[in-house]
Amino acid sequence: MKNLMNPENENADYDRLEAHFQKINDLQHVSAITGWDEASMMPTGGGEARAQAMSTLDVLIHQLVTEPRVGEWIDGARAVAGLNDWQAANLREIDRTWREATCMPEDLVAANSLARSKCEQAWRLHRANNDWQAMEPLLADVVSLTREEAHCRSESTGLGLYDAMLNLYEPGASSEQIDIIFADLKDFLPGFADKVVNSQSVENILPITGDFSDVKQKELGVALMSSLGFDFDHGRLDVSHHPFCGGVPDDVRITTRYATSSFVSSMMAVVHETGHAMYEQGLPREWRNQPVGKALSMGTHESQSLLMEMQACRTQAFMQYVTPLVQRTFLGAVSNDPAWSVDNLHRLYTRVQKSLIRVDADEVTYPLHVILRYELEKQLIGGELSVADLPAAWNDKMMSFLDLSTEDNFMDGCLQDVHWPAGLFGYFPTYTLGALTAAQLFAAAQREIPELMGNIGQGDFAPLLSWLRAKVHCKGKLLGFNELMIGATGESLNADYFKSHLEARYG
Amino acid sequence: MKNLMNPENENADYDRLEAHFQKINDLQHVSAITGWDEASMMPTGGGEARAQAMSTLDVLIHQLVTEPRVGEWIDGARAVAGLNDWQAANLREIDRTWREATCMPEDLVAANSLARSKCEQAWRLHRANNDWQAMEPLLADVVSLTREEAHCRSESTGLGLYDAMLNLYEPGASSEQIDIIFADLKDFLPGFADKVVNSQSVENILPITGDFSDVKQKELGVALMSSLGFDFDHGRLDVSHHPFCGGVPDDVRITTRYATSSFVSSMMAVVHETGHAMYEQGLPREWRNQPVGKALSMGTHESQSLLMEMQACRTQAFMQYVTPLVQRTFLGAVSNDPAWSVDNLHRLYTRVQKSLIRVDADEVTYPLHVILRYELEKQLIGGELSVADLPAAWNDKMMSFLDLSTEDNFMDGCLQDVHWPAGLFGYFPTYTLGALTAAQLFAAAQREIPELMGNIGQGDFAPLLSWLRAKVHCKGKLLGFNELMIGATGESLNADYFKSHLEARYG
Repeated sequence: MKNLMNPENENADYDRLEAHFQKINDLQHVSAITGWDEASMMPTGGGEARAQAMSTLDVLIHQLVTEPRVGEWIDGARAVAGLNDWQAANLREIDRTWREATCMPEDLVAANSLARSKCEQAWRLHRANNDWQAMEPLLADVVSLTREEAHCRSESTGLGLYDAMLNLYEPGASSEQIDIIFADLKDFLPGFADKVVNSQSVENILPITGDFSDVKQKELGVALMSSLGFDFDHGRLDVSHHPFCGGVPDDVRITTRYATSSFVSSMMAVVHETGHAMYEQGLPREWRNQPVGKALSMGTHESQSLLMEMQACRTQAFMQYVTPLVQRTFLGAVSNDPAWSVDNLHRLYTRVQKSLIRVDADEVTYPLHVILRYELEKQLIGGELSVADLPAAWNDKMMSFLDLSTEDNFMDGCLQDVHWPAGLFGYFPTYTLGALTAAQLFAAAQREIPELMGNIGQGDFAPLLSWLRAKVHCKGKLLGFNELMIGATGESLNADYFKSHLEARYG
Repeated sequence: MKNLMNPENENADYDRLEAHFQKINDLQHVSAITGWDEASMMPTGGGEARAQAMSTLDVLIHQLVTEPRVGEWIDGARAVAGLNDWQAANLREIDRTWREATCMPEDLVAANSLARSKCEQAWRLHRANNDWQAMEPLLADVVSLTREEAHCRSESTGLGLYDAMLNLYEPGASSEQIDIIFADLKDFLPGFADKVVNSQSVENILPITGDFSDVKQKELGVALMSSLGFDFDHGRLDVSHHPFCGGVPDDVRITTRYATSSFVSSMMAVVHETGHAMYEQGLPREWRNQPVGKALSMGTHESQSLLMEMQACRTQAFMQYVTPLVQRTFLGAVSNDPAWSVDNLHRLYTRVQKSLIRVDADEVTYPLHVILRYELEKQLIGGELSVADLPAAWNDKMMSFLDLSTEDNFMDGCLQDVHWPAGLFGYFPTYTLGALTAAQLFAAAQREIPELMGNIGQGDFAPLLSWLRAKVHCKGKLLGFNELMIGATGESLNADYFKSHLEARYG
């Protein structure tokens, strides 16, 4: 009846939701900029007052999201037909946001927050001291409370325990589907890694030395960001302890850090974060301030950084473009020094090594680190593995996947990541989903842009960026991940393109 | 009755106010950092989304301040005895904040905001074009609405129209008292300025040339800030279009700008902003997150910057300290070049010139610029001067005070400042109150610290800073301005110390 009286599709409750979430978005904007400031600008002594201020802001945002009238508006908006596709998707995302924020009892939210904060702070100390004994009870608390959280989320979403957590980071993903993809990788990677390490052992890599001042490294970073298509009218490059991409779509803040011994890791961090940043800068202009206009998922975000870092910028083509630029930046002129040749630099960039530490891993062994964590956290959340048995289980898998022992070495074993102490269960698989997505998207881009590698060899990333803008960035959360992948690549996510990519580069 | 039952001085409503204003303080913290970011870090393209985000945050803060229950809590808190001095002063300041925010009808707040925003934006264009005709109606709107505001504030405070506006920036000040002080200055300054300009006309000042790179200038600025006592664990120095002091007491952000032609203006901007910053850093640690723990007034704030800039750091003693530092910074070594001598640099720093532009004025002529504005804005708010007659009135006073004409030169006359277009009536006198306060405080410090000038000559500002901490900074808003001055200097504010200071330096 309301709809019949409503020829112009007026939907007052939907409009209220948009206005309310614009307000939430504005406060999230302020939170993002202040968070960036905390990591890149704030002096140490500002930390205490800042933590207090950020906590007040976060509570306020949470209160706005969980207001009971939001639920009423959602029901009201649903009762009126006539929303267009973007509006309908926005309503769906608002509903998801509201449910995720309201499905847990407040005392569980508070208990979780306290346990994680205690565990994360203790982790900094105990990891450094390799002190598993001290960590175990704290981590056990976090796991136990996260299992309660998973039960609540499972009831709210109808998903299994682990999948209910996974969906916080990767909406629509299922462990059933991930099991299949990861099984494929587990069959392939350990043997392949052995083969690559073996063949690379006879390669002769010349060390690069030089005075890699921060100023020169930043100059190179800015030049590369410009080539890749980063819009400096809507973003900046700064320094922080760990590289990250923050800010808001209209003002994206990426960071790196500079080692004086080499420009390589900072340069690749800049390329990686630029991939993230261009996703943000390409989000749909009309919708980026509403839930539907945000990045689709953590895996999709990671696919954009890895597509730039691993697919586009560790290629021979890219090295052809970047080598003279690097030489001019750090040597002052183009050089014939064999250490600074395209081939030597490319070898440096594509070194494979079995190691204990995930964040230092190359693209061949990285997924094995992720699969190890995925398998263990599924068991932890499912209740099949106790925290007490975690170090042994970790060691078993590490031996099986990478022939490396972590016995009594907790700091390089199950204590190496902050994710679990911080309660981020279900997050790890998104790294590898991102790597696979990157390979599959890049393969599709190569099919559709025949000149792509030639363009990259000339430092021209515009065709690649246009393709990503059209296929991924401008979609926001309009489509589900599977729908997006079929639209962009013609098929659902699978490991084939990633495996082919590794074989082509390292085989 | 309630109080009798309450032996431990429990005052639940007061406690509610503290918690509420801690929350407001936290959001103001975030607003301050984001505002600093906007001025010093944000790329242009981020402006639109930022304006929207900041506006949402400001509205939210305003809503929190004006909540009706705040008024109820104030009444409730007053009904219970037993608050200590700080709590009582905090309640007084909370009440002032609440009244200032609630005494105007909402439609007047909105109309004011709109008219000022239009006028300020138009001012940027019309000032550049010297277009008084276009500005007049916009400014007339602002004046007319500000008069309505003054009526509301007058009713709420019982003060006169102009004083009601003045008290927004300088609580407790009255035009009656300012009239007396400014009359004293008006008697003294025009003749004194003539005398100084005359005697300086025979001085031979050697120009300083050199490559004043940003890096070197920043190095000097940071060294000076450290000497003055700026705490870099709780603050930073950056660059913005106009120098300012922002951030929060635990994390003070000051900015400067660097001219390539000279280091002088940037160095003095850094010293000035450091004076502001050290006031913030010295606010009482236990109360700085409540209204009573903030800086006392705009004039008091300006006194802290001018005390450093004008009183301490344009002295021969300071030049003795800074000259070798400046030489080492910009020449690489100590030098005998007469252009870089203590005397030549001191002459450069103490040049007096009659000019049209307030912000470029020296300390001798600056108060005349302020008195001119003060007299005109009093008449505008009082209704004795119409906006149409403003250019002529400005010209008359400019001729009388400084022998300079602004006929048909609106851009260097009544259109030169953003204050009136932005609705800041009652603000101008605080600049000169600050200058007088600085002179009176510095004279008292010299009396109480016999070695003060010797310390400054060695770059040791610790005794001065300790004195300011004890007499001014750590008081926050505990005392009224007059009480503070009597405590610190033994008498109420007057122009004698400022005049003596000018005579000693320039006479």
